[in-house]
Amino acid sequence: MLSDKKTAVAVLMGSAGDMTVMQACINTLQAFDIEPLVRVMSAHRTPDAVSEFAANAAAEGIKVIIAAAGMAAHLAGALAARTSLPVIGVPLAAEAGLHGLDALLSTVQMPAGVPVATVAIGTAGAKNAAILAVQILALADTTLAEKLTNFKKQQTKKATQKNPHTH
Amino acid sequence: MLSDKKTAVAVLMGSAGDMTVMQACINTLQAFDIEPLVRVMSAHRTPDAVSEFAANAAAEGIKVIIAAAGMAAHLAGALAARTSLPVIGVPLAAEAGLHGLDALLSTVQMPAGVPVATVAIGTAGAKNAAILAVQILALADTTLAEKLTNFKKQQTKKATQKNPHTH
Amino acid sequence: MLSDKKTAVAVLMGSAGDMTVMQACINTLQAFDIEPLVRVMSAHRTPDAVSEFAANAAAEGIKVIIAAAGMAAHLAGALAARTSLPVIGVPLAAEAGLHGLDALLSTVQMPAGVPVATVAIGTAGAKNAAILAVQILALADTTLAEKLTNFKKQQTKKATQKNPHTH
Amino acid sequence: MLSDKKTAVAVLMGSAGDMTVMQACINTLQAFDIEPLVRVMSAHRTPDAVSEFAANAAAEGIKVIIAAAGMAAHLAGALAARTSLPVIGVPLAAEAGLHGLDALLSTVQMPAGVPVATVAIGTAGAKNAAILAVQILALADTTLAEKLTNFKKQQTKKATQKNPHTH
Amino acid sequence: MLSDKKTAVAVLMGSAGDMTVMQACINTLQAFDIEPLVRVMSAHRTPDAVSEFAANAAAEGIKVIIAAAGMAAHLAGALAARTSLPVIGVPLAAEAGLHGLDALLSTVQMPAGVPVATVAIGTAGAKNAAILAVQILALADTTLAEKLTNFKKQQTKKATQKNPHTH
Amino acid sequence: MLSDKKTAVAVLMGSAGDMTVMQACINTLQAFDIEPLVRVMSAHRTPDAVSEFAANAAAEGIKVIIAAAGMAAHLAGALAARTSLPVIGVPLAAEAGLHGLDALLSTVQMPAGVPVATVAIGTAGAKNAAILAVQILALADTTLAEKLTNFKKQQTKKATQKNPHTH
Amino acid sequence: MLSDKKTAVAVLMGSAGDMTVMQACINTLQAFDIEPLVRVMSAHRTPDAVSEFAANAAAEGIKVIIAAAGMAAHLAGALAARTSLPVIGVPLAAEAGLHGLDALLSTVQMPAGVPVATVAIGTAGAKNAAILAVQILALADTTLAEKLTNFKKQQTKKATQKNPHTH
Amino acid sequence: MLSDKKTAVAVLMGSAGDMTVMQACINTLQAFDIEPLVRVMSAHRTPDAVSEFAANAAAEGIKVIIAAAGMAAHLAGALAARTSLPVIGVPLAAEAGLHGLDALLSTVQMPAGVPVATVAIGTAGAKNAAILAVQILALADTTLAEKLTNFKKQQTKKATQKNPHTH
Repeated sequence: MLSDKKTAVAVLMGSAGDMTVMQACINTLQAFDIEPLVRVMSAHRTPDAVSEFAANAAAEGIKVIIAAAGMAAHLAGALAARTSLPVIGVPLAAEAGLHGLDALLSTVQMPAGVPVATVAIGTAGAKNAAILAVQILALADTTLAEKLTNFKKQQTKKATQKNPHTH
Repeated sequence: MLSDKKTAVAVLMGSAGDMTVMQACINTLQAFDIEPLVRVMSAHRTPDAVSEFAANAAAEGIKVIIAAAGMAAHLAGALAARTSLPVIGVPLAAEAGLHGLDALLSTVQMPAGVPVATVAIGTAGAKNAAILAVQILALADTTLAEKLTNFKKQQTKKATQKNPHTH
Repeated sequence: MLSDKKTAVAVLMGSAGDMTVMQACINTLQAFDIEPLVRVMSAHRTPDAVSEFAANAAAEGIKVIIAAAGMAAHLAGALAARTSLPVIGVPLAAEAGLHGLDALLSTVQMPAGVPVATVAIGTAGAKNAAILAVQILALADTTLAEKLTNFKKQQTKKATQKNPHTH
Repeated sequence: MLSDKKTAVAVLMGSAGDMTVMQACINTLQAFDIEPLVRVMSAHRTPDAVSEFAANAAAEGIKVIIAAAGMAAHLAGALAARTSLPVIGVPLAAEAGLHGLDALLSTVQMPAGVPVATVAIGTAGAKNAAILAVQILALADTTLAEKLTNFKKQQTKKATQKNPHTH
Repeated sequence: MLSDKKTAVAVLMGSAGDMTVMQACINTLQAFDIEPLVRVMSAHRTPDAVSEFAANAAAEGIKVIIAAAGMAAHLAGALAARTSLPVIGVPLAAEAGLHGLDALLSTVQMPAGVPVATVAIGTAGAKNAAILAVQILALADTTLAEKLTNFKKQQTKKATQKNPHTH
Repeated sequence: MLSDKKTAVAVLMGSAGDMTVMQACINTLQAFDIEPLVRVMSAHRTPDAVSEFAANAAAEGIKVIIAAAGMAAHLAGALAARTSLPVIGVPLAAEAGLHGLDALLSTVQMPAGVPVATVAIGTAGAKNAAILAVQILALADTTLAEKLTNFKKQQTKKATQKNPHTH
Repeated sequence: MLSDKKTAVAVLMGSAGDMTVMQACINTLQAFDIEPLVRVMSAHRTPDAVSEFAANAAAEGIKVIIAAAGMAAHLAGALAARTSLPVIGVPLAAEAGLHGLDALLSTVQMPAGVPVATVAIGTAGAKNAAILAVQILALADTTLAEKLTNFKKQQTKKATQKNPHTH
Repeated sequence: MLSDKKTAVAVLMGSAGDMTVMQACINTLQAFDIEPLVRVMSAHRTPDAVSEFAANAAAEGIKVIIAAAGMAAHLAGALAARTSLPVIGVPLAAEAGLHGLDALLSTVQMPAGVPVATVAIGTAGAKNAAILAVQILALADTTLAEKLTNFKKQQTKKATQKNPHTH
């Protein structure tokens, strides 16, 4: 079993160090009262764990998988190859990399037949992966749909208030 | 009303010429018995049409919006700004552009709060946008989920058969 | 009404944090005795504010709009889609981005029919946006034209004085 | 004297071969009843012609200069260095170049103090340079402003009509 | 069993269409009297075939695996994740891609612990993958080592003869 | 003679400062009980030393050469031009460079006939070069092959343990 | 001896196929009455020929070396490593490459101590390499200096005549 | 007159701040007993100073011009347009730029007819510009030629001594 507590969203990341960025994803999900299943697993260092996770995710009740990785970021693609669940990819900028351009291209340029829903590099992408997951789940969950509508309104409001008293 | 016939998927594109690529998206959706609503509209040349579409899409029964554009591809982002539905962005390589790198970055690098689920540049992305839409809809549609499972099996089978008689 | 005090130049930016760069734009305009209208608004988080601003700007007396944004920078393009006023775009380098290359391509690669006058990434672009606005306004304002001629002379003079006494 | 017939817009290009792209710019200006002054001159092969043109342009009645060049595209910048008129730069993709990325960066990344209003690479940019010039001139020319408003309406209409009869 | 005839080199490619480029790899191996095992398999469309191949390759007598793929090229990495054999990656330029830059970064930027020996994009890389495989095998095969020495001499000779009779 | 003590692996680097990155390579080799021959030599500053090293390496018992360099990184290519031993190239990100993109392209884009087995930019590549060397040597060394199998298991184990106690 | 006839300029290229581009270089030199020594030699396929050429060039009367190559273009750098003569590098765009960006970075990003005078990618660079060589030789050759002055005048004249009869 | 003391090398830079990088160029020239003429001048802010400098340089005894600039780096090209002296371009990485890629392309991608001898981005390029200037002058100056030979030997020696005592 993947988890004690059933949850609709899994947040996977290639290495434990990715948590500094992906915490923003988890926080955003929690703001929608979704407690995600969080796992560190690597398409390259723990490929069997990835295969197994992908194979069992749907049966365990997971509906959306968020996968974050840097460099030649294969995690999202490796999952997408083995599940029909929507997989959201978050490209990360590794310390000694190409600012995440490598991770972006490795994540988004998937061949026909196996999509990965790719979001922006880094923290913005981490948050957006959470919101995209919520948007997907909200299609069949009116409570979540309402929260989403409210979130969008609050976001607009906050952005509006940041408007400086001007000239 | 956006359409006579209710459909769950809209396929929008920035210009009529984009149909050469996006036909692959429409064909793929039709292979899953989804007849999409297809519209040409531009974030830059017909911004009000885009705003209106985004504002009404959910009420009209649209569940997933696919938006394809080239160059400074804003269509997907402009829609995502005005709806809480999942928006899938397909970056296109314009004839005299940067091979779609401009469209890719304009589509995927969305700021925190407004995700666009970006897929690959061009035809591969066009097909994958359709499959991703199906994956999202299949979460609440068991018939579609079965078709998707079958599609994935067929795909594996076909890929396997292409294996050359070898040495 | 967009503003209490009439002004010919609006300086818009995607988020409040962009002020650190865009202050250079405002300062440069003020050096030409132009007090700009300054607003934070986002093509993605406050799209209606942007639409409304663009629709009313000309009637309010705005003649040139300067718009700065990072990542998938759509602000300038979203404004240009809805006004016939010249729109100047300043691409910004987001903290976790691609050094502003994403913002540059999102701003400059506009499709035929809807131009954005794009300047350099970051602070140099912020200053140049102001000067470009002044150049445009000076075409019909001889006082401003004189100030501009004087500015150019001072600039040349200062650059010349920086010449080290050398070898 | 730069020209027999007074005109407000000059269209300059680095080499005669650039006319294949820049004809789109000239056509667009003519659609607004602006007959531009067209000249081939090169920042590198005919620098004195460029200096002289820039120095005299304002006195000759030119109000906006459009300059197109490829590779290390310096034409727009060389003009902007010597005039206070707004200079619009069109980066061109040379046959054996980097798809215009070299021309784009050479045109847009101007240092603080000397702006070039840069538009898209190639034909889209050629057309947009013309429209941007019209937008600038229209600020002090109500006839032109009306034509511009009409152009924008027609553009929206045409884009709307291209909408395929759909499903 | 992977193959009827034992061979030390496997040449895998992501899709059947890749054979147009990879034939150069096979030809080069054959010039060294190595008849490779050739298979079409995809990290994304046939992930289980890839996992299985990687798991069994060493036991089947394979010593070096050459893997070619385009776009978000994961094939080489997916194999390297599951075998301790040296894996050589050939990035391919897909028709509608970024000239193979996407495939190059997806292949070479592997995280610490799981190397892929990456060669050049396209045909040059296809040939070099074969030569690299021969170099590796030649370390424990003196006949092959002699062929390799001879190949290098011939290559130098041919390159020298191409020298035009000149001035 | 290249070295007092016979060793199968040489680790060469373009400048002494590269040791900060390449220590990771040496450490990894030592973890497999391989004490490499370490030399600083430059394809540009000490070309004769490089030619001589390449010419004598095989005779001295070297089986795999690892070469690290930054900027226009020619070291690996210069060695590969003069030896039939496998040469592994590690592209380094110079302080004032293009994040190693220059070194990557200079190392990997070798012409047909002269392969360099290229790994990732920087520290990840430094470690992976060592592992790749071990993978190559392990083909004819069962003790090393066992260590490699064990390393891969440990790596998977460690990666698994890093999995956070989750939600 | 490198050549029967003494000449001050050598034009080297990595492969015979590069002649299609480099003929422009030879033609330009001949227009200045310089009959260059032309050789095909490769830093990777014929490294000893390159070393020998570089070592003997000065003694043979060569004063400037022009070296053209594609992909991981090391030819110019390999020569510069072994001679104190000025070496001019022409990056070439290989058929299946990155439009010459790989060759450009491999040629220009030389480490401190060993310069390569790099010119533009392809034909423009081929011609400019010749002119740069002439500029260097003309410093100590007044006849050549006059030809150069005349060439520059003719170039300006021709560029001026290309000016279309305009509007 | 450009200078009190006659010198064969001018070192020009676009802004006074560039001295932090270009001091390395001056130091290197001084190590060869060449006291350069150093000037801050900008193709964009002081174009007339640049034109004048280029026009008079040869008559003043200057033989080689080194020009350093960042962003849309036009300084070297603007000089090369107006003199037949060899012009060496040093691309600089501006604080808020694209790591000097913009300056590199703006400097090196000169059109046929007007070469700029481009060296590496930043400090390495600054030093190499000096050495290249010395290489050019040494063709007609045997004392300098000897110093250059000695410099190359010392460089090789120093690089060799940096070789760590190894394993």
